[in-house]
Amino acid sequence: MIDLSRLHVLALSLALLGSCATPYGDRNRDQSQAIEAVIRAQEAAWNRGDLDGYMHEGYLNSPDLTFFSGGDITRGYDTIRERYRQRYLEGGKEMGRLAFTDLESFNYGPDTGLVRGRWKLEFLDKSTLGGLFTLIVRRTPEGWRIVHDHTSLGEKP
Amino acid sequence: MIDLSRLHVLALSLALLGSCATPYGDRNRDQSQAIEAVIRAQEAAWNRGDLDGYMHEGYLNSPDLTFFSGGDITRGYDTIRERYRQRYLEGGKEMGRLAFTDLESFNYGPDTGLVRGRWKLEFLDKSTLGGLFTLIVRRTPEGWRIVHDHTSLGEKP
Repeated sequence: MIDLSRLHVLALSLALLGSCATPYGDRNRDQSQAIEAVIRAQEAAWNRGDLDGYMHEGYLNSPDLTFFSGGDITRGYDTIRERYRQRYLEGGKEMGRLAFTDLESFNYGPDTGLVRGRWKLEFLDKSTLGGLFTLIVRRTPEGWRIVHDHTSLGEKP
Repeated sequence: MIDLSRLHVLALSLALLGSCATPYGDRNRDQSQAIEAVIRAQEAAWNRGDLDGYMHEGYLNSPDLTFFSGGDITRGYDTIRERYRQRYLEGGKEMGRLAFTDLESFNYGPDTGLVRGRWKLEFLDKSTLGGLFTLIVRRTPEGWRIVHDHTSLGEKP
């Protein structure tokens, strides 16, 4: 015998897998995948040593883009690119191998989302840097782009 | 003579002061004031030594509330309260005087907002701690409440 009430619960559960509202924001599977694809593209660009790709694939090219880290507010796409260049390229520095893990994303309506998780950089000598990030992403004509990045460095990476 | 075209520009400017859309989110004056009032209430509670008020006025009382700092993810209202207690109350520690400055807020639809800015704690011996914060706030039956807090400590506070 087919238990119709159980089938009903199953159908409802499958629908909820696609989209569900929480106090923290909505979780819409398609939108989350689109948002997370942006930072996966950033990760791939970084790991082929392509800082311009990392910037372009992820960040909104705007003078009002913000990057919060430690106690420093860096504002503007070009200034943020320069910050990365000084830290990871200048004088033959090594960009390292970047990995984003523990991603969680939420949607706030059709045009805004949040992605948060951990970042880790591993260098050739096996030393590491890592911490957490919170990103606000917005839907733009070029696709989803980060408009605000709060990145922290773990004391024990 | 009244210059009608100038009056028009003036009226439009006044309307934009009330609400305006940016790539980073909307700026709605009333909603921003309501959101910023939440963290001003937190500031006031902290400065009267009221940790429970600080928690209750600001944070959503939920096991899924998140606090990101350095490399540590703290999850849940009670766990986050305990983190504050250990750092600022336990063993007769001093809570210090808290000030939030450089606030900027954005709205993502009627139920979600972001507030970011600087935090600074000053202690009786004039030592300070400070850094940056990014908060996601949501409209709840109790009012606006923080659902995600990313706080970083400046290397040079």
